[in-house]
Amino acid sequence: MYSAISPLEFRYLNFPEAESLRKYFSEEGFIYHLALVESKLVATYAHYEHCSSQIATQVHEAVDKITVEDVYAEEKRIHHQLRAVVNCMAKHVSQDAKPWIHLGATSHDIVCTTDAYRFKQCSQLVLQPVLLELQAILISIAEREKNTVQVGRTHGQHAVPITFGFAVAEYVSRLGTRIVKLQEATDNLCGQFSGAVGAYNAQSLLVENPIEFEKTFLGKLGLSPATHSTQIVEPEFMLDYLHACTSTLGVLANLSDDMRHLQRTEIGEVMEEVSQKQVGSSTMPHKRNPIHFEHVKSLWKTFMPRMTTGYMDQISEHQRDLTNSASARFYGEIATALYLAARRLKRVFKGLIVDKEALQRNLQMAQDKIIAEPLYIMLAKQGHPDAHEAVRRCFIESDAIDDLNLSEEQKQIINNPQQYIGVAIQKTQQVCDYWRQKLHKK
Amino acid sequence: MYSAISPLEFRYLNFPEAESLRKYFSEEGFIYHLALVESKLVATYAHYEHCSSQIATQVHEAVDKITVEDVYAEEKRIHHQLRAVVNCMAKHVSQDAKPWIHLGATSHDIVCTTDAYRFKQCSQLVLQPVLLELQAILISIAEREKNTVQVGRTHGQHAVPITFGFAVAEYVSRLGTRIVKLQEATDNLCGQFSGAVGAYNAQSLLVENPIEFEKTFLGKLGLSPATHSTQIVEPEFMLDYLHACTSTLGVLANLSDDMRHLQRTEIGEVMEEVSQKQVGSSTMPHKRNPIHFEHVKSLWKTFMPRMTTGYMDQISEHQRDLTNSASARFYGEIATALYLAARRLKRVFKGLIVDKEALQRNLQMAQDKIIAEPLYIMLAKQGHPDAHEAVRRCFIESDAIDDLNLSEEQKQIINNPQQYIGVAIQKTQQVCDYWRQKLHKK
Amino acid sequence: MYSAISPLEFRYLNFPEAESLRKYFSEEGFIYHLALVESKLVATYAHYEHCSSQIATQVHEAVDKITVEDVYAEEKRIHHQLRAVVNCMAKHVSQDAKPWIHLGATSHDIVCTTDAYRFKQCSQLVLQPVLLELQAILISIAEREKNTVQVGRTHGQHAVPITFGFAVAEYVSRLGTRIVKLQEATDNLCGQFSGAVGAYNAQSLLVENPIEFEKTFLGKLGLSPATHSTQIVEPEFMLDYLHACTSTLGVLANLSDDMRHLQRTEIGEVMEEVSQKQVGSSTMPHKRNPIHFEHVKSLWKTFMPRMTTGYMDQISEHQRDLTNSASARFYGEIATALYLAARRLKRVFKGLIVDKEALQRNLQMAQDKIIAEPLYIMLAKQGHPDAHEAVRRCFIESDAIDDLNLSEEQKQIINNPQQYIGVAIQKTQQVCDYWRQKLHKK
Amino acid sequence: MYSAISPLEFRYLNFPEAESLRKYFSEEGFIYHLALVESKLVATYAHYEHCSSQIATQVHEAVDKITVEDVYAEEKRIHHQLRAVVNCMAKHVSQDAKPWIHLGATSHDIVCTTDAYRFKQCSQLVLQPVLLELQAILISIAEREKNTVQVGRTHGQHAVPITFGFAVAEYVSRLGTRIVKLQEATDNLCGQFSGAVGAYNAQSLLVENPIEFEKTFLGKLGLSPATHSTQIVEPEFMLDYLHACTSTLGVLANLSDDMRHLQRTEIGEVMEEVSQKQVGSSTMPHKRNPIHFEHVKSLWKTFMPRMTTGYMDQISEHQRDLTNSASARFYGEIATALYLAARRLKRVFKGLIVDKEALQRNLQMAQDKIIAEPLYIMLAKQGHPDAHEAVRRCFIESDAIDDLNLSEEQKQIINNPQQYIGVAIQKTQQVCDYWRQKLHKK
Repeated sequence: MYSAISPLEFRYLNFPEAESLRKYFSEEGFIYHLALVESKLVATYAHYEHCSSQIATQVHEAVDKITVEDVYAEEKRIHHQLRAVVNCMAKHVSQDAKPWIHLGATSHDIVCTTDAYRFKQCSQLVLQPVLLELQAILISIAEREKNTVQVGRTHGQHAVPITFGFAVAEYVSRLGTRIVKLQEATDNLCGQFSGAVGAYNAQSLLVENPIEFEKTFLGKLGLSPATHSTQIVEPEFMLDYLHACTSTLGVLANLSDDMRHLQRTEIGEVMEEVSQKQVGSSTMPHKRNPIHFEHVKSLWKTFMPRMTTGYMDQISEHQRDLTNSASARFYGEIATALYLAARRLKRVFKGLIVDKEALQRNLQMAQDKIIAEPLYIMLAKQGHPDAHEAVRRCFIESDAIDDLNLSEEQKQIINNPQQYIGVAIQKTQQVCDYWRQKLHKK
Repeated sequence: MYSAISPLEFRYLNFPEAESLRKYFSEEGFIYHLALVESKLVATYAHYEHCSSQIATQVHEAVDKITVEDVYAEEKRIHHQLRAVVNCMAKHVSQDAKPWIHLGATSHDIVCTTDAYRFKQCSQLVLQPVLLELQAILISIAEREKNTVQVGRTHGQHAVPITFGFAVAEYVSRLGTRIVKLQEATDNLCGQFSGAVGAYNAQSLLVENPIEFEKTFLGKLGLSPATHSTQIVEPEFMLDYLHACTSTLGVLANLSDDMRHLQRTEIGEVMEEVSQKQVGSSTMPHKRNPIHFEHVKSLWKTFMPRMTTGYMDQISEHQRDLTNSASARFYGEIATALYLAARRLKRVFKGLIVDKEALQRNLQMAQDKIIAEPLYIMLAKQGHPDAHEAVRRCFIESDAIDDLNLSEEQKQIINNPQQYIGVAIQKTQQVCDYWRQKLHKK
Repeated sequence: MYSAISPLEFRYLNFPEAESLRKYFSEEGFIYHLALVESKLVATYAHYEHCSSQIATQVHEAVDKITVEDVYAEEKRIHHQLRAVVNCMAKHVSQDAKPWIHLGATSHDIVCTTDAYRFKQCSQLVLQPVLLELQAILISIAEREKNTVQVGRTHGQHAVPITFGFAVAEYVSRLGTRIVKLQEATDNLCGQFSGAVGAYNAQSLLVENPIEFEKTFLGKLGLSPATHSTQIVEPEFMLDYLHACTSTLGVLANLSDDMRHLQRTEIGEVMEEVSQKQVGSSTMPHKRNPIHFEHVKSLWKTFMPRMTTGYMDQISEHQRDLTNSASARFYGEIATALYLAARRLKRVFKGLIVDKEALQRNLQMAQDKIIAEPLYIMLAKQGHPDAHEAVRRCFIESDAIDDLNLSEEQKQIINNPQQYIGVAIQKTQQVCDYWRQKLHKK
Repeated sequence: MYSAISPLEFRYLNFPEAESLRKYFSEEGFIYHLALVESKLVATYAHYEHCSSQIATQVHEAVDKITVEDVYAEEKRIHHQLRAVVNCMAKHVSQDAKPWIHLGATSHDIVCTTDAYRFKQCSQLVLQPVLLELQAILISIAEREKNTVQVGRTHGQHAVPITFGFAVAEYVSRLGTRIVKLQEATDNLCGQFSGAVGAYNAQSLLVENPIEFEKTFLGKLGLSPATHSTQIVEPEFMLDYLHACTSTLGVLANLSDDMRHLQRTEIGEVMEEVSQKQVGSSTMPHKRNPIHFEHVKSLWKTFMPRMTTGYMDQISEHQRDLTNSASARFYGEIATALYLAARRLKRVFKGLIVDKEALQRNLQMAQDKIIAEPLYIMLAKQGHPDAHEAVRRCFIESDAIDDLNLSEEQKQIINNPQQYIGVAIQKTQQVCDYWRQKLHKK
């Protein structure tokens, strides 16, 4: 493992649960799923009684018998990975069954269908669950802190107050929207069984209605065909999936960025939990660095640019060229990165320390300035002809607020700027209720 | 115009219909729409009887009275664009009306809402129509050429035959899927009226139910709010829109790439129409270059990477920072590029020359090789134990086909490789029918 | 101007000195330089006495006589921009001179050479000067503030102290290195005169030694040829130039990011100068936002991703395809963005407010923690077997420092953490001296 | 290995010589080099007689004694990788030696220096050699085929002739320029020993002249310092290195693209060598696909976009943030991709089949058209007032060439278009000589 060059291998997937990803995106996982899809094809021939169900069963049982090592050895001999899988499967079935494996299929009928299948499975069984868990934690923090007043910040400058729960609710909403987008993109992943150039040439020699046959075959995997395919499935379905992953990662990166800035020494409103034994810096033993939030930002910088590969892979000449041979093999890493970011944030948010004193202290710094906005609004509301300018002069050019002729009630608001939080509390609850309901219902 | 640095200005938008884009994406268009949105806000105050309908009317009439020049002059004085718009509008209304303009709004309530509105309008009225026109042309070519046999190509190598109409149907399908995606992303663009930090702080001083007020206001523009906003609308809605544009441009780039390769001297199956006066090359007067297809590819290379800006703009610190101040202003260029590509392809495909002789000639080159696949399929179907290897040896190691023991019927297929087109014709028609029905129904 | 879609036009180049950029990158500038280069070609024919010097003079005088409008009208007729330039020039010369214009050249002999020439000129006369001015301002601030102690920050956490001048010196060094890189890349820009496919086919019919002829021609423009060219100059020279621009913009973005964080309300160590009339926020009249620093970051987000276009433009099929027809026209925008960022920072840094009280206040917050590092170093130096752990326990687990057995001298250091600035002062001066000497010598 | 998710691991580095890369870029290699650099630091203390040479020797010997497994176990305990390396080393030295390890260093003094060292070593010992071998093969092909006439192609259209050797010489030149750029960027990689914030704070307590000490230390590794550093080395040196790698990969991708198009069925001028056993397609046994050229293009699509990560890593707040913690760990993959592409092309070009008959056949297709250019040139040279238009009309509007009044000598050229190759042969030789001399001299 430590001889790997990819940091994913030796560093970021170096924990037992990573198995749940490897199952789909490792080469073992890939080859297993190729064989599984080949077996479903034979099952479809059996379904239409072209071959016997015994043959389908034989082929199905062969799926678990082949090993990656055998496949790679065979590929070394014949220089074609999928044909190597087929040849290896063939060794484990009777003479009668052999011709049915891969019959009528072009390699990418199997490869594209396998990719749709394993990305879909992984999305539904691994990716979406971890995102939903993170979402649940964010919801619980938003609810818990919905009354905790925090100064709002725009341009890094104190603005008017919100609550910390309201700030977290932003991410409940944005993450919620992304989860829905990921679900949609996952559901749209398509397979195919349309032959070497997409016109069902071979299939037409073999079955009566190749378009219906394709539907039946894909149905066995929970997939549908696109309205058209060439040697490959239209690339846009996978591209939308990658966009969903990448834009979700972007939301997590923004969340992490917010948190690491709130952990700045001068601000100190939140802090990553640290263990007693942890070394903050090799030379400054007192440092408490937001390393997990920094890590998620860094993952985003590493994987976001890979969308460009996805966009370039839209271009495949005529009925296809193979210039996505290597590039498409790396797509699993993008889903992996999203999983890693969500998993880490889940852990960090569980232990997130919210420093209420610091929140209060920072708010007090802003106290005087906060009142500028309600003042302007109240003056405007009572018909002041140039309220904005009047208030600007109070604060920048020090005109007296007393000159502004406010009612007692209005003065009351001006004197309690920490109450000037709008409907932050209700809105937070509303956002939490909406997304809990939309995503977490049984 | 020729003093511009942006090639969009002097070169690519240098035609009268470009006006339809400038209406939305020019600075004139932007400022007009800012004022329009401000007027809808006052209309909402009138709706709830906070102010009179006369005031709303005054403000509405002010929209057409302000000029960009005035706004820029005012901005120069106060260094704030939106406030400059407000000040200019205020000059055209009575003293009573002044305080109602922009009341309770933060700049980005107006800016984000304006962007959602104008991108939506432009998408529905300009972008989608040109894409649908292109789609209609592609459908008509696909149908017209559904029987025109063409050799299929994978890896740039002759594979088995399809028809030219079938090849075009690929793009009918992919473009169709993208148009649907663009429609969805357009419909999802959100506005807001939630104040300086998103918690409706100012609004709470002004109206009873600010969340309902926001809905009413946005409803007047055909928009909805997101479940949460800060000082800005969640960036993901615009990002999805940009993704829809960029991935549509990718489909057009692939289409163009296919066509320019089919126009290669040695292939010559299609040709861009050229006028008699056109100069192909400044030194080689005989050249007939696929300049329009090259141009679309080049637009894609220019604008596709800008998605990265969109992904980076997901990150905005806390209730927002302003590091999208410049970058978001350029988004209109991405929609513009898509429009330009679609418009050009529309024209080129209308006049596309399909050279049937060349199609036939190239197919004949492939004749001998094409039969390899049906041969393999037929052998496999009749139970040959290693059909693939047997056929490979026929072609690479020159074993005789005669040895393969084929029936007369099978020989018939082998002797007419140009008939080996699967269900290309039916599939083409099916794709055309599906998308015509889905997109072009009245 | 306000009808433009490109924000560069209506917003960011909306000031008189922008003329210095338009001279090179506008369409007017482009066409002027195309004609200029054509005239140098005729001058080369005259140099070798193929044509008379009168002819060369006529053509030279034609350069200023053609107008962009005429060229565009001619292009509309013949659909070829460069041939249109040639035709327009031809109208202004005698019958004898006509055949010499463009003789033996392919369009891109002229276009590539023109681009090399104008990017070089602009770099030397506009871009490098503004970068050197910014560099001079940074040097003066670094020197002025070299003794101003500031707490150093890593991970957003207080670390050990530096000086503010030392922090600025980082950018003196990084910007210096980039300016050198830009100079190198500028000097390497190559032209060509090698004909339609690069083999000097046409030239060989016209002149005795076409390779020498090319050198003479380019020499008249201060350019050299590459060791090989096709129809176009090898794209890597321009790519290196774009990389130099983009990576310089990255340094300015980092500088801006540092400053806007130092302007955060809680930190407040620096502030952009603001005019009395300036509106900070349309609803919060008290806000003082780091809008210029945000703007530079935003320019970087807008233009950095365009490097990807440059990398994609490396790929041009065979002796060239035209898929860089549009994309390469946009390269001037990248140089423009760098100019705009440097120009803005120049102005902002001239007026930058450094708040020494805030610097002192923040440093004091860190006081106790800062001593951890020197303590660890001193313990280690005197041979403590596990100094790092001992100090970590002092700070995290509250062991007493008194237990550590320090000398009086050591205690002295521990009691004055603000003196623990290493050689920040000398280093700052060294960096300033080095770069002033290297870049600003007459 | 097959449980890896990264395709680099299970698929592309799955050959024995990959060891030469793993030595530098694997985690084993990283940790080994961290320890090595730590040992050089102690050696520097010994050099200045701060500690004894025995201590330096002990530490040096500890380098080979630590294992990655131990380091990871220790890291698991203390959550800090570099400190874990130090602790592991400390176990293998005497009590006296322990305090000297890592003394005065901040983690990134060691990490940045290690990265500069290992990327430099790998570039000089692995990357540059494979590029030079590829370059030598290209030179030998260019020389061998310098007389083999080939039709030049622009826009995919036949233009005027060159030779195949001349076409290859393009890549000799472009690759040569890139190798030089890579050498420069490699030589510029910098290390540092400037402490937690770059001001040599700790170092100042330990040694008399920390700036000189840094130079001595880095000198032991063949490195220099930058003019300034913070906690990290200025990121631009590594960025230039990544740019050199990426732009070199771009040249290889263009070369591959040219070759795969020349292998198109209709063109067929070159062919990748295939073994007898190789399966071209799982369903079309006759296919001969340019899979290696496609693969290199695909590698480029995979790794080129990662430059964007490099550009984003330019931004690190203040004296550094850790948002490059993950991203920078992936840089080794970019160098790896370049190595893989060069290695594969080396093998493919060694066996490249050049089909002279196909070259001749394609040239003949162009015969008639080729003469357009020399005709135009000759007419222009003899003073024809509108030569370009005259020739255009001959070819497009079928005016007779006979009307053009050519001399016998001129007719001779017109009748032998295949001789119209300019100075392709000499230029090819010149390019080969230049680059052989510049790069391959002992």
